[in-house]
Parts: sequence; C-alpha cells; structure tokens
Amino acid sequence: MRNYSYVLPFLLCSLLVQAQWSPLEQVRSYRQSNEHLILQEFFAFLSIPNVATDSATIGRNAVYLSQLMKSRGITHISFLKADDPKAPPVVFGEIKVPGATKTIIFYAHYDGQPVNKQLWMPGLDPFTPQLVNGNRLEGASIIPLAEKNTISPEWRIYARGASDDKGGVMAVLTAYEALAYAKLPLKCNIKFFFEGEEEQGSPHLSQILEKNKELLSSDLWIICDGPVHQSGLKQVVFGARGDAHLTLKVYGPKSPLHSGHYGNWAPNPVMSLATLLSSMKDSSGRVTIRDFYKDVIPLTDVEKKAIASAPPMDETLKKKLGLPREEMKGVSLMEAINLPSLNINGIESSNVGTIQANVIPVSATAVIDLRLVLGNDWKRQQQKVIDHIVAKGFHVVDHEPTDEERNLFEKLIRVTRGEGDNAQRTSMDWPLAKTVVAALQQISQQPVLQIPTLGGSLPLDVLSRVLHAKTLIVPIANADNNQHAENENIMISNFRDGIDMLAALMLMKL
Amino acid sequence: MRNYSYVLPFLLCSLLVQAQWSPLEQVRSYRQSNEHLILQEFFAFLSIPNVATDSATIGRNAVYLSQLMKSRGITHISFLKADDPKAPPVVFGEIKVPGATKTIIFYAHYDGQPVNKQLWMPGLDPFTPQLVNGNRLEGASIIPLAEKNTISPEWRIYARGASDDKGGVMAVLTAYEALAYAKLPLKCNIKFFFEGEEEQGSPHLSQILEKNKELLSSDLWIICDGPVHQSGLKQVVFGARGDAHLTLKVYGPKSPLHSGHYGNWAPNPVMSLATLLSSMKDSSGRVTIRDFYKDVIPLTDVEKKAIASAPPMDETLKKKLGLPREEMKGVSLMEAINLPSLNINGIESSNVGTIQANVIPVSATAVIDLRLVLGNDWKRQQQKVIDHIVAKGFHVVDHEPTDEERNLFEKLIRVTRGEGDNAQRTSMDWPLAKTVVAALQQISQQPVLQIPTLGGSLPLDVLSRVLHAKTLIVPIANADNNQHAENENIMISNFRDGIDMLAALMLMKL
Repeated sequence: MRNYSYVLPFLLCSLLVQAQWSPLEQVRSYRQSNEHLILQEFFAFLSIPNVATDSATIGRNAVYLSQLMKSRGITHISFLKADDPKAPPVVFGEIKVPGATKTIIFYAHYDGQPVNKQLWMPGLDPFTPQLVNGNRLEGASIIPLAEKNTISPEWRIYARGASDDKGGVMAVLTAYEALAYAKLPLKCNIKFFFEGEEEQGSPHLSQILEKNKELLSSDLWIICDGPVHQSGLKQVVFGARGDAHLTLKVYGPKSPLHSGHYGNWAPNPVMSLATLLSSMKDSSGRVTIRDFYKDVIPLTDVEKKAIASAPPMDETLKKKLGLPREEMKGVSLMEAINLPSLNINGIESSNVGTIQANVIPVSATAVIDLRLVLGNDWKRQQQKVIDHIVAKGFHVVDHEPTDEERNLFEKLIRVTRGEGDNAQRTSMDWPLAKTVVAALQQISQQPVLQIPTLGGSLPLDVLSRVLHAKTLIVPIANADNNQHAENENIMISNFRDGIDMLAALMLMKL
Repeated sequence: MRNYSYVLPFLLCSLLVQAQWSPLEQVRSYRQSNEHLILQEFFAFLSIPNVATDSATIGRNAVYLSQLMKSRGITHISFLKADDPKAPPVVFGEIKVPGATKTIIFYAHYDGQPVNKQLWMPGLDPFTPQLVNGNRLEGASIIPLAEKNTISPEWRIYARGASDDKGGVMAVLTAYEALAYAKLPLKCNIKFFFEGEEEQGSPHLSQILEKNKELLSSDLWIICDGPVHQSGLKQVVFGARGDAHLTLKVYGPKSPLHSGHYGNWAPNPVMSLATLLSSMKDSSGRVTIRDFYKDVIPLTDVEKKAIASAPPMDETLKKKLGLPREEMKGVSLMEAINLPSLNINGIESSNVGTIQANVIPVSATAVIDLRLVLGNDWKRQQQKVIDHIVAKGFHVVDHEPTDEERNLFEKLIRVTRGEGDNAQRTSMDWPLAKTVVAALQQISQQPVLQIPTLGGSLPLDVLSRVLHAKTLIVPIANADNNQHAENENIMISNFRDGIDMLAALMLMKL
C-alpha cells in the first residue's frame, strides 16, 4: 500500500469528521488534502516520454504505471503483451470485490501523440510538465515556484499526455486511491486496462484481447479519454468515429534542382500534390471523392434528439478559434462529426522560413486523416481515396519508385496506408447507460449530456468485435486541451472533477 | 606575400623548364604542384558557415577572405560597407598595372543559401567540407584519408558554397596567385569584388555601388558564378533571369485542433493553400496568372540562333533526374529559362513522417520563387500574383492577422514580398565578348558556347543601373552541383578548369 505518513498532518482534521460525510465528500476531501502529492506523481509520470513507437521509453511508462498501481493496493497486476516484443503492453490490474457479480473495466491509455518540440510555447517542453496560469491564447505564463502553494482551479498542466491520456490514467488511479483510503465499499469488481499504443491506431490490441478474453470479461467498459463538451458540461458519449490514414508522396527530380536554372522546366512536386489535394473537396467544403458519404448509416431519431439537446457552441468556438466560418456552410459541429471526414494533418516539401532555399524539391508529402462513422469500413474508405487518385491520372505505388516507374508514369504517387479502425456506437437505449449518467449526475449541478458520437477515435470497434464489450466514454479533459498538438494541457478543475467522476462510477451498483 | 617555402621541393623541377612554357602552361603547373595547399585553404574557407543573415559568421568569412587576398599580394583591400552595420561587406581589392588603360572586375560571392543539415547525405555536414568519389546519385562515398594523396578529377568537394560561390572566389584568387608567382605580365588593371549577400537578393548592393562609383569604374565585369553547360562545355553567358519571392501564409484555427473532434468543421489551411497554388498553373504547366507572360521582350534572332546552337541536353537530363517529362510539354530547357517562371520552393504545415499528429493545423505556408526575363519588372511580377490571389477571393494582409480580420474575411492570406531584381542581358554583338570567348577558347579543345541567359539570377541589373557596368558571366561549376540544396558540390576537374579559365581572362588585352 502507498505510504501515507507524509500526509498525516493534512489528514488529521478531516479524519475526525469523515465518518459523517457522504462517500463522494470523502473522495473530495482526500484529493484536496493530498493534491500536491497526487500532482507530484502525475508530473513524474508525464516526465517519461510516451510516444509508442519509441519502445525503450514507452516501456518505462508501463513499469512506472505498474508501480503506481501496486502502491495503491491494486492486485493481479500484469503486462498483457502482443507477440511482437516491441509492442507496448497493456498494463492490467484488478480489484475483486467479495460477493460482486458485475464487473466494470476502466480504460485509459498511457501513450501520447508524437511531438514537435519546436512548436511548443517558449519555456515549455512536452516532457517537462509545467503549471501555467491559463490558456496559451490568453497570454499565459509559467507559475513561479513560490506561488504554487495554493493551486488555482483555472491553472493548467502543460505536457504531452496531460489530457490525452495520462490525465485519464491518473484520474482513474486517484479515484481508486481515495476510495481505498476511505475504505468505501465497492459493489462491482473493478478492472484496470491501460493501453500503450492507442495513438498509433492500436495495431496489437486485437491480438492482446484475443489472448485474454476471460481475464477481460466485464459488463461495462468505461473509456476515460477525450474532452468534456465545449460548453464545459460533463458528457457520456456512446460511440466514437473510426480513423484511417494515408500518406501521399509525389516526386520531383531525383536531385533537388536550382529553381533558376530549371524552374519552368522540371515539374514541381508541390504543385502536383496541391492540385491533387485540391480536387478532394469542393468550394463548399464537401468531399468530392466518389461515394465518400454513401455507406453512412443515418442517425436514429433518439440520436438526433440527443444532438439537438446539447448546447450549441459553434459561434462561441468560432470566435475563440478565430474562424470566420465552419468548413461546410450551415453544417454544425455536432452534425459535422457525425459524417466521415477528410483532413490534411500536415504537408511538407523542402523548407520555408529562415532555411528556405531556391529549389525545385525532390518530393512533397501530405498526411491525410480519414474519420469514419457507422457504416464506413476503414479499408474501403482508404480505397475510395486511392480510387480518386487513380481517376486523377496517377499511377499509385506502395514503395519508393524505381527508375523504370519514374520513366513510365507522368503522374506517379506513393500511397502508404496507415492502420485504422471503424466507428462504433452503443445504443442510446441501453439501460446501464442510465445508471452511468445517474452516477455522474450526483456530482454535477448541471445536466450531464448524452451524446451519440465523439469526433475523435477510440478502439471501440475492436473491443466490440473481439470481446462483445459494451463501452461508454466518460471524458474529463477541458475541450481546449490542445490534444494531439503542441501545448497539450489539462485544466486543474477538470482533473479534480475527473477524479470525482471516476470515483462515482467505481461506486456504482450495476 | 604568401609564404611559398612549403612547396619549394614540388616546384624545383618545374621552375627549370618554366621559361619555355606558355603563360597558361605555367598557371597549370603552379596549380598542379600546389593543389593540396590550395584545397587546404579552400576547405578552411568552406568551414566558416556563410548564410548572410547570420551576421556573426558571415563577418568571419569576410575577414578570412581579406587575409587570403593579402597573402596573395592583392592591394587596396577594403570592406565596402552599407549603412546597416549588419549587412555583409563587399570585400574589395585591386592590382594596378603600370600603363594599363583598361580594367576588368572579377565578381564572385562568398555567402551561400541557407541549409537544412538533416537533408544532407549521411556523414556530410554543410560546413565540414569532404572529398567524395562521385555524385550522390551514383552511390558515392567519402574518400578515406589515406587515399587522398592523388586527387582524382572526378572527385567532388561537398560543402555549402563549394560551387555557389566560394568555389568561384577561390578560383579567382588561385588564378591570380598563379600569375603572380610566375610573374606573368598583366595588360589590364584587375579589381576583385566579392559580395556577401547575393543569396539574399543583394539588398544593400545598390547602396554600396552608389557609394563607390569611382572605385568600381571598369570596362568589363566577369561574373564567376553558376554552372557550365549541362553538356560539360564551357560557356559565356550574356545575362541572367531576375528573381523575386513571395511567402504565402494561410490561416486555420488559432489553436491546433484535434482532427477527430473538429475534422469536417474547422476549415483546414492546407486545403485552402493547395487550392490557391493549384489555380496558378494549368495542366500543361503554363502559369494561368493574368498577363504573366505579357511584358516579355522576345529573344532576338541572334539570341535564338545561339540557343539553337547549344547541344540539346533535355533527354539526357530527364533520364538522369528521373523526370518523365518537362513541365510545359514541348518546351525545351533552353526555351523555358527564357520565360518567366513560377516555382514553389517549399511548403510546410504541421508535420509529416514520424512526428505527424492528428491535427487541423493553425497555418500553412508556401514560398514562391518568380524568375523574370527581360521586360518583366520584379515588383510588377509580384503584383500579378497578388492580384491573382485577390481574384480568387482572398483578403491579403502583410502582417499576422488581427482577431477582427480573422472574423471579417472568410479567405485570409498573409503575403510577404521578398527582395528582388530584374533580368539583365548584355548584347551578344558586344565586341569585348569576342575577346572573352577567344581567351577561353585557348584552353578548351571544344567550342565555348555563347548563351543569352542563365536560368539563375545575379545582381546584373543593379550593376547596370548604378554603374552602367557591362557584365559577362563565366561559370565554372559542374551542372549537377546541387546548388542551393543539400549536398552542394564542385567537381575537382571543374575547379581546376576554373582556375585556368580565370587566369586566361586576367591575361586578356581588351
């Protein structure tokens, strides 16, 4: 068990009155009294780089996480591994409750998106967590050490994974820690399932699930990932979009050429790629790729009603983000994330800025992110894009082109298919969902929203296919958390709320 | 004077027979006997980073260069400075020849294009010159130290500036060194003019010329920059294209957004920029911007004939560069560089490759390089592009947009105008040109080509406007020198030839 001797002075007072408090008041008191220690462990966890493709450092995360679990009295801790020794393990643990017949699995992931350190706010490093007094956009600054004694709910922790999703992991563990400390009786068995390659598209998850079907039996998966609603309201989300990637690489001359001596004569790969990308959407922002929207299963009336009942945030968001309009005129955010999307994640060719040079580049590369809704199949969705590229006259290869291929094909492109998964959604009529919403409603003055689909993706489809798992998403992060990008952050108030929410869910009787 | 004591053993033999040799044979003998020492100084020069915007290191280049000149007995060495103390100086020097009535100025530049070290061949660094046995494309490798004793003419020196244009500076200085050593009589005064910000568009050159009109009086400028013809033939080039840049930056959300939660709803700046760029050329590779080709002064019959007489290299080059076709169907390289061009030097938004992330980027930036021919005006050419952007519905600003501007304009773009200069061309009928060609013909078995225009740019227009200077370009570098890009190099045989060519020009009687 964790050594609590450090915090005794803080706790003495609260211990005396604890017996008269409700379970959730006891949880709140515990996390208030111990906040510095909780953040200390959270910061140490955030300091370990967690890009899943770096197998050395991702392994250190798994080990540290298992130690955090052990110190909280979680039992049956194990690493669930894929055949590939480099694949990050799932860190598993459980609490068996005598007499309990139902089981809840709490899911979060400890890996994060890749980082480009140069883009982070000056003074910030993705793996050196810092407390900052606000949001970057509003001229925030790092809190001086001397002022950290009283932590404001408005402050934010900046680090890769702060919100997505080490914040989720820490909220789950802290919620359990508080319950265990107060010796509050649980009514369901609890399992902990912390994935280590969600941001890579969970390529080994299916195999790990297949190997551990019995260990992972449950009645409900709570997926702790993603942001709360942009209005700040808590939400239970019934599904998530699927996701698939394509990397497109177009070729220019084999050596970079002087743009004076050869400009006008050697074809420029950026122009070719720009023209191709441009052909994928029309001026109204809709994807022009054939059948792109064809296999979408429409929302049910219940789902449409749920969407309509969420507070409309479009105008507030547009103002905050400096966007004069939405991409598809008249289509709201809630409607948009219930359609398949095509987004350009990034593009690169040669250089711009201080190291720009007068060249005709050797290649140009863009990464396309396809989000999918129910009815889409991720491989079919990728194929639609590839078919479009072929229809535009390109010869598609899956490798660096040979001299012969360069010679033969005027329009040549390398397309690399990334991993993907399909969308998944639990029926909004499912009775257990009402239990979950009710549990969260206990600690919220305002209504808890019920939303059919999260715009982001989670490996819900594979959980459903392999384990027939029933999943509900309970996000805790602030909506403006810069997830996936530079200056990722979680607001202190969201982290605190998250602990309370997860404790409430652990106390549920299903 | 330079201390020649090191090389005495090498020279003893040649000294005995020298008296019977022609002047150019004596030059050749000198550079053969001293090649290791010449390269030693060349390598030391290449080791000083030379991006003109880095005022600290560019100044070290100027100082080292002035020392090289002093050690060769060049007199009246001075730094010709602009008012801005950060502007790199022109390093000037001269040799006054008793009785001479004509003056030749030798121009080269000691600054280089910016570098992206990561793109260089493994083991190479732009500012650590290396001898490599061939061209990168053909699987070259760095020469082991033990094998450097006998230097092969096919080897190449890799470094930023090796060909563009420290190679030119060193060839000029070594040619003079050889003439001085052999005490060969000059018939013209010689001035040396080494510029330090040519790759930045020579923003202070006009001011420096204005201040030093008398000092810079001359009958002929020999511009030693650029590559020889792709066929390997030596060439005298009568002019160069002008150049102007535009940087285009398009905006997305103020914070980077998760491409799942907001993909389809927040407009993507890459798509907007791609569509704009794509609108600038048609499928036949011609620029679609209104009046883009309108003010071009057509080539004269003499110029057309000169172009036609150059060996056609298009098919050989396309094969070597892996290009299935030229950009404008049926337009040869020689024809293409006599038209204004629009090239995308680079594009960037967010990331691709190992650090790609699932985001909607905050902005997308592209750099456009416009090359100009006679008749074009560089500011007018920039304006044509800007007018095109406006015609495509964009609101153009010259600063980071304010919140109000973001809110007001659905299509918003920041356009930054770079420095520029116009094309310039000396008449192909100019009698002195014949003297120059004849001087070069002395040391060439094959015909010396006469070409109206170099594809690249040089500050010829400002020389003509301020000084009424008459200029001829005499390039020495190999055509496949990767000028401006990673793995820039000069072939040993071209550097050797260059020394001989410049010595022949210094010996001319005008």
